[in-house]
Amino acid sequence: MEFLGKNYLLRNRAGLEIYDAIKDLPVVDPHNHANVREIAENDNYPNVWQLFAATDHYVWEVLRKRGIPEEYLTGDKSPREKWLKLASVFPETVGNPVYEWVHLDLKRYLGIDTLIGPETGEKIWEEANAVLARDDKRPQQLLAEIGVEVMCSTDDPVDSLEYHRRLEAGLGRKLVRPTWRPDKAMKIANPGWREYMDKLAERFGMKLDSVHDLVKALKLSHDYFAEHGCVASDHGVEVPFSGDADPADADTAFCKAMDGKELTVSDTHEFMSYIFGKAAEMNAEKDWVFQIHMGAVRDVRACLFANLGPDTGGDVCNYYQDHLTPLQGFLNRFDDKLKVVLYCLDPMHQPMLAAMSRAFGEKVRLGSAWWLCDNPVGMRRQLEYIGSVDVLSCFAGMVSDSRKLLSYGSRFEMFRRVLADVLGEMAEIGQAPVELLIKLAIEMSYAGPKRFFNL
Amino acid sequence: MEFLGKNYLLRNRAGLEIYDAIKDLPVVDPHNHANVREIAENDNYPNVWQLFAATDHYVWEVLRKRGIPEEYLTGDKSPREKWLKLASVFPETVGNPVYEWVHLDLKRYLGIDTLIGPETGEKIWEEANAVLARDDKRPQQLLAEIGVEVMCSTDDPVDSLEYHRRLEAGLGRKLVRPTWRPDKAMKIANPGWREYMDKLAERFGMKLDSVHDLVKALKLSHDYFAEHGCVASDHGVEVPFSGDADPADADTAFCKAMDGKELTVSDTHEFMSYIFGKAAEMNAEKDWVFQIHMGAVRDVRACLFANLGPDTGGDVCNYYQDHLTPLQGFLNRFDDKLKVVLYCLDPMHQPMLAAMSRAFGEKVRLGSAWWLCDNPVGMRRQLEYIGSVDVLSCFAGMVSDSRKLLSYGSRFEMFRRVLADVLGEMAEIGQAPVELLIKLAIEMSYAGPKRFFNL
Amino acid sequence: MEFLGKNYLLRNRAGLEIYDAIKDLPVVDPHNHANVREIAENDNYPNVWQLFAATDHYVWEVLRKRGIPEEYLTGDKSPREKWLKLASVFPETVGNPVYEWVHLDLKRYLGIDTLIGPETGEKIWEEANAVLARDDKRPQQLLAEIGVEVMCSTDDPVDSLEYHRRLEAGLGRKLVRPTWRPDKAMKIANPGWREYMDKLAERFGMKLDSVHDLVKALKLSHDYFAEHGCVASDHGVEVPFSGDADPADADTAFCKAMDGKELTVSDTHEFMSYIFGKAAEMNAEKDWVFQIHMGAVRDVRACLFANLGPDTGGDVCNYYQDHLTPLQGFLNRFDDKLKVVLYCLDPMHQPMLAAMSRAFGEKVRLGSAWWLCDNPVGMRRQLEYIGSVDVLSCFAGMVSDSRKLLSYGSRFEMFRRVLADVLGEMAEIGQAPVELLIKLAIEMSYAGPKRFFNL
Repeated sequence: MEFLGKNYLLRNRAGLEIYDAIKDLPVVDPHNHANVREIAENDNYPNVWQLFAATDHYVWEVLRKRGIPEEYLTGDKSPREKWLKLASVFPETVGNPVYEWVHLDLKRYLGIDTLIGPETGEKIWEEANAVLARDDKRPQQLLAEIGVEVMCSTDDPVDSLEYHRRLEAGLGRKLVRPTWRPDKAMKIANPGWREYMDKLAERFGMKLDSVHDLVKALKLSHDYFAEHGCVASDHGVEVPFSGDADPADADTAFCKAMDGKELTVSDTHEFMSYIFGKAAEMNAEKDWVFQIHMGAVRDVRACLFANLGPDTGGDVCNYYQDHLTPLQGFLNRFDDKLKVVLYCLDPMHQPMLAAMSRAFGEKVRLGSAWWLCDNPVGMRRQLEYIGSVDVLSCFAGMVSDSRKLLSYGSRFEMFRRVLADVLGEMAEIGQAPVELLIKLAIEMSYAGPKRFFNL
Repeated sequence: MEFLGKNYLLRNRAGLEIYDAIKDLPVVDPHNHANVREIAENDNYPNVWQLFAATDHYVWEVLRKRGIPEEYLTGDKSPREKWLKLASVFPETVGNPVYEWVHLDLKRYLGIDTLIGPETGEKIWEEANAVLARDDKRPQQLLAEIGVEVMCSTDDPVDSLEYHRRLEAGLGRKLVRPTWRPDKAMKIANPGWREYMDKLAERFGMKLDSVHDLVKALKLSHDYFAEHGCVASDHGVEVPFSGDADPADADTAFCKAMDGKELTVSDTHEFMSYIFGKAAEMNAEKDWVFQIHMGAVRDVRACLFANLGPDTGGDVCNYYQDHLTPLQGFLNRFDDKLKVVLYCLDPMHQPMLAAMSRAFGEKVRLGSAWWLCDNPVGMRRQLEYIGSVDVLSCFAGMVSDSRKLLSYGSRFEMFRRVLADVLGEMAEIGQAPVELLIKLAIEMSYAGPKRFFNL
Repeated sequence: MEFLGKNYLLRNRAGLEIYDAIKDLPVVDPHNHANVREIAENDNYPNVWQLFAATDHYVWEVLRKRGIPEEYLTGDKSPREKWLKLASVFPETVGNPVYEWVHLDLKRYLGIDTLIGPETGEKIWEEANAVLARDDKRPQQLLAEIGVEVMCSTDDPVDSLEYHRRLEAGLGRKLVRPTWRPDKAMKIANPGWREYMDKLAERFGMKLDSVHDLVKALKLSHDYFAEHGCVASDHGVEVPFSGDADPADADTAFCKAMDGKELTVSDTHEFMSYIFGKAAEMNAEKDWVFQIHMGAVRDVRACLFANLGPDTGGDVCNYYQDHLTPLQGFLNRFDDKLKVVLYCLDPMHQPMLAAMSRAFGEKVRLGSAWWLCDNPVGMRRQLEYIGSVDVLSCFAGMVSDSRKLLSYGSRFEMFRRVLADVLGEMAEIGQAPVELLIKLAIEMSYAGPKRFFNL
């Protein structure tokens, strides 16, 4: 019953045995939002707020829910004031995974075993900052402590990947590989798209006069990423695309948007589907993994978006979306030619996606329980259901999807414990021999993803 | 393993400890369908059928399912015949929560620890009726025994609230507060709407010549309810409304309906959305809670509706509905200005609603697992999922939603036990310190709802 | 913790007690895809591949997912080569129910308690084939060993039912009853429909000049099936139909299709709805059960369908479908006149269907967790949810839905164990007296379905 103790999340003996076999495996994190500059420069974190909360909208959301004003989250208050405000209400967030993650970070990596609360906020501020000032708690040292073997950040096609190069040069190996995410090029109806086209043109010294030119620029970027160790792309969409749009329609949309003319819904759809399909073709050629993050409805809370912009909270999942029709088109179009990973935000889509993954053979895989599902309950449900329909050894593996460095430890620990618990339960009730489940757990939490992503 | 024994619904030691801390807290029930006249008049119940089943369509439904003819449910048979018929098949309903509730009522409040069945029906009829004839088993005495501190009934805007006043005068305190539910005024396409307008006009001595007049009448009613201790409104809709309709369109619909002309789908929608929005404005001004009950598809079984009218069974949930779009409009329109509680009938909508609740800050809260989800499985799933996405301490709290007086005891017991079990499990597997979970359980089952509803 | 041991799938003492009471009850399987010819001819199985995998697309799917080429599944390789290939990857399928079923078949019915894997494939091939060559392991003897009392195959209206007759003549009793499944007649937009009409015309010596003639032919077939002991029809549809189409519209569609003209979406819909309704009328007259299998989206993987045809894998479930509207029309139309069983592939529809079943009284029942839900997790969730909303004693009962003879044993064992586990849990936490749950388990796993289906 110890909080975050030895048996954390483990409910049976077989689960303990399985967890013992996987807990010290290296971490392979094929999708996150690592701040590569931070890692390359390897400066100490200035304080615990910066490391734990300054970039994490999961934390902001639970604090907003407890009534903390924005100035203490994304606003002008000092990091110390922000941390103390967090501490003042943190016990009220118990039950949310944020409560577990932050305490895991504190306990496992800073060695501080104190509950965060109004009485302990100051003490932890002092102690944690002191730990963070140590040489062995700089980003690269923390990654080594966590056991990260390799991970993939998420990067824009215009990125020079300067920090990836610097980091590789410094370490002599590819610790952080880039991932190619062309969302900004694809989202033609978004406010910044037109300016983004200029950036892209400049980056590759081209003029973009047609959608064909755009694809050429993207191809140059794709090649550039490949030269820098990229093995996957990533695509964030509310609903997937079939990728079989008519190039002429896509070009019409492109030219209208370049000229600042208004787009119809169909223009937008055709253009996005076309770029989606072209990206898939490029990936197929290079045997990259095509990751689809789908089902997120972005920026539903207008005041957050207006004041703080995107990725600040206010995103939700939605069950009322047809993912099957476009996905069926897409998966047939690239059947057996493209490695695909499906991540979906709303748990209601999981049974259909598990069945699609099962239907389309070994190259199509379900990704880990994403975001609002990335917690013990969401993971458990997903693993139970996938195991029943799809094949667990074909699971695409855990990804942290996180901006926060310590998450590459805490979230993987949470996943491995839940995995061990789910498989342990199967052993306990005689559904499988425990020796096979240990092998399966190793495959799922390390060997399988490494092989699938070519890491 | 004792049926309804000390460990009923509790599967671990921490759960027992948590339940011990909350089991004797007073009951605060912010939403039910109490028969206030029955409570104010405080007469003894004539028999156990009347108290247990005569007004409870949950009971009717399970008996229908076991083939009991309507005459023994809503028809002309005597209460004794009805009770004996219920007893004859009651063992076959085991597994449905009705089986637990009725036995809880019998055991906890009438002190009868006998299983209902064909051989015991008569004995229980005699014994239960004898208990119900006692002075200490009259409505007000039962409410005291249950520990009800305060509860909110559901009332029509034309209601004089006579019985609320009488009850308050008799007790010297507000035991039952009214809730303002203007569904009849809003549901312009329902058969009785035109007649209802006459009632409303008469109640407030007005002529209703425009939708503006209607809103004026509703405002008079809203004020009247406020004077009588009302703190919340309630709105039953299949799908929510954004509340931003054009007043002119709403007025067109109103005038057509007053003249007996046929309405288009759009007329109906604009009118309903307009009234929905106006009600929300009134609530925002008075800091009332705006409760939305959504997702119920009413009266799907034609023969029940034709013979018995609404609220007699035959209502179902539906997953195939877009709640997100209108809800997003509504919550943004009233962001930070209105307290909202979301109750949804179909479990498939819960993840989206939990994410919406999380996104819109402290004033928007998820309501308890409603109706078809109001049972151990539905509650457990909802609490697990909400805990993972939203913040449990922001849960709007248990409501009985019941017409049956003993439910204010039995259903709260069921909820508190499930809550203790879910939180206890978190303690057992090290997800949270048990001391914090005890505080959380108290907040969720008593202090939090009381504060949020201003009770 | 023994794999498939005594406590397989059972997690508590009450569950063990309940399972003891039902494990040896005869098997009644009201819906499967038995190969009646195989049973009637009663020849020994040539080898273990033939019995375990040759006709089972569940097995093919998990092997495809592990990269086994089609030639080893549905192609030209010898049964021995296929079996050894299966064995080479079988440990990697652990966690999927196929792993459990195949080992159950091997252990329970062939007496071989070896884990299938690359090192044991050959040994098992020899041993299993030797067992299958024994007289007591022929189809009829295996059915007796399993304890099958009666089961219902799935048959086309043109079928002569020759093997049903032969089998009955041989055994002196109706071991396998036919089920009338007119999907081919109904699916007017399918490629083979026109040719099927000729077959049907020939079978009943009629000319089909109108939809009226078609209904007459179907009625002749319906009567013929009744004479041969049929008690139910079965209908596979993506979305249900209300059955209230205009006969004139149906006839228009029929005549167009007979003349090879193209049909509109509405033609197809009206025709299908009309036949659906007519079939229901025929069933109502004979008090047959009307089984609806809904929610399966067929043949989504184009390459499988192109190379292998239907029913070879590549079918998925879908949550994004409106089942409620047509089902409400259908159930009202036949309210209290027709016995209906609802089987749905996607778990997201289950709450709505449980509520519909609850609403429409004793003749409408939920069917067992189908196909992608037919595994311990899917069954458990379905039973838990149904128990909470509907009445468990009105559950339509387990069906194997299988082409594989040993499934009539292994799948029923899996169901009975999960049922005992779910009910056992209710006993353990005091939700019901264990004596009643034992009665309920017997009703649900034997007596109830037998009575409902008139078997």
